[in-house]
Amino acid sequence: MDQFSILSNKIHTTKATVGVIGTGYVGSSVAKETASAGYQTFGFDLDKKKVAEINNLKIKNLSAHIKKDLLVDCDIICICVPTPIYKDHSPNLKILKNTIQQVSNYLKKGMMVVIESSVAPGTTRGLILPILQQSKLTAGKDFFLSFSPERIDPGNKKFTMKNIPKIVSGLDENSLKLVIQFYSIFIEKVVQISSLEAAEMTKVLENVFRFVNISLINEIADYTRKLGINIWEVIEAASTKPYGFLPHYPGPGIGGDCIPVLSYYLLDSAKRNNTLLRMVNAAAKINEMQPKKVIDLALKILNGKTRKNNVKSEVLLIGVAYKPGVADLRESATLKIWDMLEKQGISVSYHDPYVSHVNGFSSKSLDPKNLASKDLIIITTAHSNIPYQMLVDSKKPLIDTRNTLQGITSTNIFQLL
Amino acid sequence: MDQFSILSNKIHTTKATVGVIGTGYVGSSVAKETASAGYQTFGFDLDKKKVAEINNLKIKNLSAHIKKDLLVDCDIICICVPTPIYKDHSPNLKILKNTIQQVSNYLKKGMMVVIESSVAPGTTRGLILPILQQSKLTAGKDFFLSFSPERIDPGNKKFTMKNIPKIVSGLDENSLKLVIQFYSIFIEKVVQISSLEAAEMTKVLENVFRFVNISLINEIADYTRKLGINIWEVIEAASTKPYGFLPHYPGPGIGGDCIPVLSYYLLDSAKRNNTLLRMVNAAAKINEMQPKKVIDLALKILNGKTRKNNVKSEVLLIGVAYKPGVADLRESATLKIWDMLEKQGISVSYHDPYVSHVNGFSSKSLDPKNLASKDLIIITTAHSNIPYQMLVDSKKPLIDTRNTLQGITSTNIFQLL
Repeated sequence: MDQFSILSNKIHTTKATVGVIGTGYVGSSVAKETASAGYQTFGFDLDKKKVAEINNLKIKNLSAHIKKDLLVDCDIICICVPTPIYKDHSPNLKILKNTIQQVSNYLKKGMMVVIESSVAPGTTRGLILPILQQSKLTAGKDFFLSFSPERIDPGNKKFTMKNIPKIVSGLDENSLKLVIQFYSIFIEKVVQISSLEAAEMTKVLENVFRFVNISLINEIADYTRKLGINIWEVIEAASTKPYGFLPHYPGPGIGGDCIPVLSYYLLDSAKRNNTLLRMVNAAAKINEMQPKKVIDLALKILNGKTRKNNVKSEVLLIGVAYKPGVADLRESATLKIWDMLEKQGISVSYHDPYVSHVNGFSSKSLDPKNLASKDLIIITTAHSNIPYQMLVDSKKPLIDTRNTLQGITSTNIFQLL
Repeated sequence: MDQFSILSNKIHTTKATVGVIGTGYVGSSVAKETASAGYQTFGFDLDKKKVAEINNLKIKNLSAHIKKDLLVDCDIICICVPTPIYKDHSPNLKILKNTIQQVSNYLKKGMMVVIESSVAPGTTRGLILPILQQSKLTAGKDFFLSFSPERIDPGNKKFTMKNIPKIVSGLDENSLKLVIQFYSIFIEKVVQISSLEAAEMTKVLENVFRFVNISLINEIADYTRKLGINIWEVIEAASTKPYGFLPHYPGPGIGGDCIPVLSYYLLDSAKRNNTLLRMVNAAAKINEMQPKKVIDLALKILNGKTRKNNVKSEVLLIGVAYKPGVADLRESATLKIWDMLEKQGISVSYHDPYVSHVNGFSSKSLDPKNLASKDLIIITTAHSNIPYQMLVDSKKPLIDTRNTLQGITSTNIFQLL
């Protein structure tokens, strides 16, 4: 029997062993689903804590490991490792490359490698395939290669891995057939794409769309502020249009591991292909300026005084996660604001119900006494479980970058936008 | 009784007389609704044809007029005149200003003036109010001034004037109350906005959103074409994401009297307020480049030959309207393409089932004999009632700027994007 039929059979009979490299939000979701569907599943992660977390769940068919020896037993390997950016916004593919190199060492006949990590168009064919081919095995015949971008929205209870349609693509027809078969096991709708590159681009487009639209509203908000127009009211009003409009909201800067990251991956890819992307460039420029606007307003409110009576001014940041309801700090604008405040000689502390430690600091509990020592409070993440009224009652100046205090009237509230 | 109570009573008892200036798509819709709600309604338009069209409908309570004498009898005057742009994209407010000047001459106690025309934020208060105040009447007491942007989508059968929520705002509380009362007569949902400026900005945002997103996809499409990725497939795939994405489609350039016009109004307004809008500027730049891309591809296909055997090359444009299903030519990219082709010394003809005459030409009927004489066919508008298969069967080179030939395979089809 050929390798395609053997693997297809193994998937069909639940005999395939699944390895998931990277057990963050995405990888752990995939691993749990395949394990509960009856597949022997191994999760791999260098983070001891994540490995322990999974093993503590004691899910049937699922175990997590730091060492990758067990890859030798895997038929399907899902790559869910992060693809972050460097401080200069250039793509950091080190983790991905190293991972693929390790997979290549274990590659054997009948294996399928599925890439879930977000990459620029052309990466699976141009970067990943050549590394796997070092094994001397033939792609599409001996082994299979597919790209299927993750679409999980952390914190979203309505749309989960199961009911978000899954984009799939393959290097060749066999790879495509196998990846469709695989994800159909635990995902309701699988959407077949004609090429690896079109699938990679789909994920990029979804995220660039948000990057551009949030930057647009940040730009518009700057202008409406000048005009004395409340942008939040305008967005709410525009949202009553029943077609052709999707609201996006201003804030201190776009964070997370997807929206800004993929936008910079696209910009890098376009630059290498001598293509100027004016819209995406403009969006990046605006996004990079957002934290500075918060700092400017903060300094204005502190009356330029970063010290009072020879003691540093104290600023409390409410929320360090990049979005409400999660603990994820990746590309969080709050961390940039924190850094910039400290560079101004200001003492920074934070409160975040989801993030107990960061930058060597612990989340400060919120009580009137604690607030009394602050010179300024900045709401940077719109977590729902914050005692906002207590912040207002402290009578301390408050910068509300997220309109979380909508409806509360107080002369101490300053809107960034 | 005060003027507010008098007018409010007249609206309540259907005794108010309504005047609608500008009886295009928007004005005629308003006039028909108020007339059928039982209000004596006068439409005013300088275009004899439009006036005759309305009068030929013989709708009870409704008559249309060229002269504006009957404004003297009106209690409510809706301004629905066009606010176009000049060739250099700067706002052309001549028609609006002249109209308001005329209204000012007829302004009397107890009147309400409602602006439906699209304008930049600040226009109702900064430009219109001062002209009306020349009457020496007091706004908010003697007369009332409101802004309520039109949201009609020509050709949209699902969403009409009746069931599209209507944004309303007033110069003062009385003006706001009256405009809410007025539109509530014939519109299902009226959305009250806190200021004229926020309402003006709402309409601007709705349209700038589309301007920016269509420009973004045009920019992305240019890049994916370089990479050999089909952007239409990518958009369709991204649209399977059940949240956070709204598809927009590439094309030869954004037309119509709203999307580009309001975007340029905003740019002009921002410039006058020393504000750089990078995103909107970039979108404008991209949009202005779109027709040129069609010309470049056309010349490439014609092999640079604008003449053959000393006779001009012939190009047939399919669709001159700015969008499918309508006859509207305003800001249509096709007209720009036409102009550029002629400047290249190419002979241009067109077919459009909705537009029988334009540029002194008549819409050419489509038959194989007619097509045989053409050197190139360009599909510029995605009208549904076009015999597309006949175009393909002609074996003539075809530029499909709208992906209307999706699914048809032929070596003669060229995609712009």
